[in-house]
Amino acid sequence: MTLVHSAFRPSSSSLRAVGRPLSTAAARFRLPPTIRQILSSPGVDEKVVVTAWVKSIRKQKRIAFGVLSDGSSGVGLQAVFHEQLGERVKEITNGTSVRVRGNIVKSPGSGQEKELHVEEVEILGACDPDTYPIQKQALTPEYLRDNIHLRARTDAIASMVRLRGRLMRGLDRYFENQDFAYAHTPVLTSGDAEGGGEAFRIAAISSSQDPVRRDASPEIVDREFFTHPAYLTVSHQLHLEALSSALARVYTLSPCFRAERGVTRRHLAEFWMLEAEWGVAPTDDPRAQTVALCDFVEGVVKGVVGDASVIHGEDVNVLWRHREYDSVPEAEREKRREAMVSAVTTDAPWAKMTYSDAIHELLKADHEWTFPVIWGSALQSEHEKWLCETLVRGPLFVTDYPAGIKPFYMRANPPMAGENEVTMGCFDLLMPNVGELAGGSVREERLHVLQASMHNKGMDGEGDRYGWYGELRRFGGAPHVGFGMGFERLVAWVGGIENVRECVPMPRWAGRMLL
Amino acid sequence: MTLVHSAFRPSSSSLRAVGRPLSTAAARFRLPPTIRQILSSPGVDEKVVVTAWVKSIRKQKRIAFGVLSDGSSGVGLQAVFHEQLGERVKEITNGTSVRVRGNIVKSPGSGQEKELHVEEVEILGACDPDTYPIQKQALTPEYLRDNIHLRARTDAIASMVRLRGRLMRGLDRYFENQDFAYAHTPVLTSGDAEGGGEAFRIAAISSSQDPVRRDASPEIVDREFFTHPAYLTVSHQLHLEALSSALARVYTLSPCFRAERGVTRRHLAEFWMLEAEWGVAPTDDPRAQTVALCDFVEGVVKGVVGDASVIHGEDVNVLWRHREYDSVPEAEREKRREAMVSAVTTDAPWAKMTYSDAIHELLKADHEWTFPVIWGSALQSEHEKWLCETLVRGPLFVTDYPAGIKPFYMRANPPMAGENEVTMGCFDLLMPNVGELAGGSVREERLHVLQASMHNKGMDGEGDRYGWYGELRRFGGAPHVGFGMGFERLVAWVGGIENVRECVPMPRWAGRMLL
Repeated sequence: MTLVHSAFRPSSSSLRAVGRPLSTAAARFRLPPTIRQILSSPGVDEKVVVTAWVKSIRKQKRIAFGVLSDGSSGVGLQAVFHEQLGERVKEITNGTSVRVRGNIVKSPGSGQEKELHVEEVEILGACDPDTYPIQKQALTPEYLRDNIHLRARTDAIASMVRLRGRLMRGLDRYFENQDFAYAHTPVLTSGDAEGGGEAFRIAAISSSQDPVRRDASPEIVDREFFTHPAYLTVSHQLHLEALSSALARVYTLSPCFRAERGVTRRHLAEFWMLEAEWGVAPTDDPRAQTVALCDFVEGVVKGVVGDASVIHGEDVNVLWRHREYDSVPEAEREKRREAMVSAVTTDAPWAKMTYSDAIHELLKADHEWTFPVIWGSALQSEHEKWLCETLVRGPLFVTDYPAGIKPFYMRANPPMAGENEVTMGCFDLLMPNVGELAGGSVREERLHVLQASMHNKGMDGEGDRYGWYGELRRFGGAPHVGFGMGFERLVAWVGGIENVRECVPMPRWAGRMLL
Repeated sequence: MTLVHSAFRPSSSSLRAVGRPLSTAAARFRLPPTIRQILSSPGVDEKVVVTAWVKSIRKQKRIAFGVLSDGSSGVGLQAVFHEQLGERVKEITNGTSVRVRGNIVKSPGSGQEKELHVEEVEILGACDPDTYPIQKQALTPEYLRDNIHLRARTDAIASMVRLRGRLMRGLDRYFENQDFAYAHTPVLTSGDAEGGGEAFRIAAISSSQDPVRRDASPEIVDREFFTHPAYLTVSHQLHLEALSSALARVYTLSPCFRAERGVTRRHLAEFWMLEAEWGVAPTDDPRAQTVALCDFVEGVVKGVVGDASVIHGEDVNVLWRHREYDSVPEAEREKRREAMVSAVTTDAPWAKMTYSDAIHELLKADHEWTFPVIWGSALQSEHEKWLCETLVRGPLFVTDYPAGIKPFYMRANPPMAGENEVTMGCFDLLMPNVGELAGGSVREERLHVLQASMHNKGMDGEGDRYGWYGELRRFGGAPHVGFGMGFERLVAWVGGIENVRECVPMPRWAGRMLL
């Protein structure tokens, strides 16, 4: 059968969007319209051909109503199958892949503007209703994680995947607009995250498996592919700093890895991080730079998430409607959503508070802490939760943490009158229900200070391992700042998703890696 | 000193580009303008503050001329330092990081439209001219690979990094325009690429390094983090197919890894691949689908690379002017560039040829082959090179390869009259001077055929390992196609770069991984 797509020649504006006007010759590069494109085009009484899966079908005596999805939209296409289509309609079950041809007409029903009157149907792939793992009733997150290869067929996971793509595109446009270069920093690195045991290590190659060394003498049992040990990166920051010492403004959205054995709803072994580094004006007091850095991060989240196509888009709707994702009551959930929307659409700046002030508030609080509140110790989840959910009731930047709990590359604040302890020009961004979404700092650009700081942490600032990092300062070093943001946590916050395992298509965590 | 950025409040159109109009409150989210933005804005006689590195400086008695770069553009900003700036100018050398304040004026020189008359200069980071590794004279690629942390300070590497970002953005817009969802498929996988020894393996955790198992009994020497072996992915195809069975059109640009010990100018241990999968109309003969698939891939390259901002952009200019990147003579290089530009701007379709016809041409050719030309064997580099560089003199799709040299997931063509051998619905895209840029195929969507094919290759199509891949077909399987394109090879072709090690910021190959 010849299939007709001509009703959906793309508009000239969508063609221009790819960068230059497409010639007629370029029509052969176009794919036929998706359901999303059909539903968002103004036309009715058009002939269309649609390839899709049947999300649901309700069969009556002389007519059947189906909802078709091709994954392009959180909204399906209502399809009406008439009697004359015969026996074939009886074979259609949930999950069946079909190709249908028919007319798009105004829908008399209240649920949708348009519907498809099917004139011809072809079954591409049957789906046995008795054994199909994706049944209509509510499926638990745990069950879907076990059926990871099929779970994108559920509305919520499909919406999450599309939301990730939309956020990624929004982020890229935001950074492009601020003249950042996107940089592909490496996944394989020499750094083992300071030997904390949290970096995955690439196995050495044993000579027996090595095609060019099959003849190796027995004493060569194994050796390193790169001649020295290789790890999976836990952060792209140091590599980005190298690029930032040439390109000034760089960012990446790249996979990071942590072999953390602790299993929580906020940690994955493989996760994606947005990381950025850029040059700033010199200063003797990094505190003002930390404030500007927080402002920038707030701008990123507001600019990208606050975009109407994200915050009021169908995918975010689908995710918040999806109750299985969260154990909290409906009314509380609605309040959370409103707070999230308000946070990204308000002009009011997000709250900022120094670590010292945060400690002060925690000590004042009428609350029994599991972990003691002590200046100089890291804030625990319970502390962070209380600060942003109870005290501030919204996003909160905590700044100027004690030097003792922060890494070597941060720039210290000069002591303030009445303060004895050294703090760093840095911040953590805490979000309600998600915890730490982002963290960043002013980087130490003065070589001698950096080397002293590395020495204090037992690192060799001039050797093979980190000498290069010092050289970025030795040769034309410049003041700069940077931050990292957990992409899955951003998705969790925007979509109201309880566990980051539902924030990435194929999650990996300690003990679990399917496919 | 107070620094003035007010001359560069962004225009309202650039603000709208981030998705919604920014309020005045949002001005605190903006970074000051880069050199690229200053050079591309229409204004002159404006006060600006620029933080940048000195690319070069020429000192005369009462005046000095410098070129400033902040990495935002392949073109630097000419800066004029007058006598009254005093001693400070004497300290400026190549590589020095400076912050300058001054006036943008019309340039009397012929090399540029605008220049900066410096009124105030602050040295942020000195750069010792005697030890600075990035000297002015030509530096070999090998030398720069050894100074990988600094090499983005050279014009060519900086242009390459920016070109990557531009191509990535162009690709994303192209795919978005065709309604593809971007999907983050995993890097850590269970698949070892069929045991070919080319997949990197994650090392098992030895109990002594394992924080939660320090008390482990001595017999537990090591174990797997995920309970079973984990590898770094060599291709995202199978995972993308799982998502494509729900979202229909999906693509990714993600890192892939190959522990290949062979060292060539076209192979890296860590590289980025563009991969896409999407549904197509059913057919009994995949040959037509292969043709449509080739057309789509041609559309991607033409649409993205053919965009004037890429093909006639400053970064591509810088790269082709950069002679150290290629050992071929200038005139030949110019011819190659013209051929590349012509390939992406012509409306004429790129050449297509079946494998059988290619073999026929190779056998006819007046050429001594190192590797024999035999139907049923893989094409060697020398064959591919001759086909696209000598026979076709341009991009060439070779289609319908013999079944025996292709993987289990491809869909076979039905035999044609007079043919005894089985061929597959697949293609390789060969590019002059680069070789194989992309490859793809029609995927086998019929479960029983797929299982037979897996059985023939010694794979278990129903077990734990690949049973899930069969289930994508068992439950509503649909016809689909897909391809992968080597991102570094695309960069090599567009930028006229000889070795893929100069096509990624921090290359990794057998025996070599710096930083």
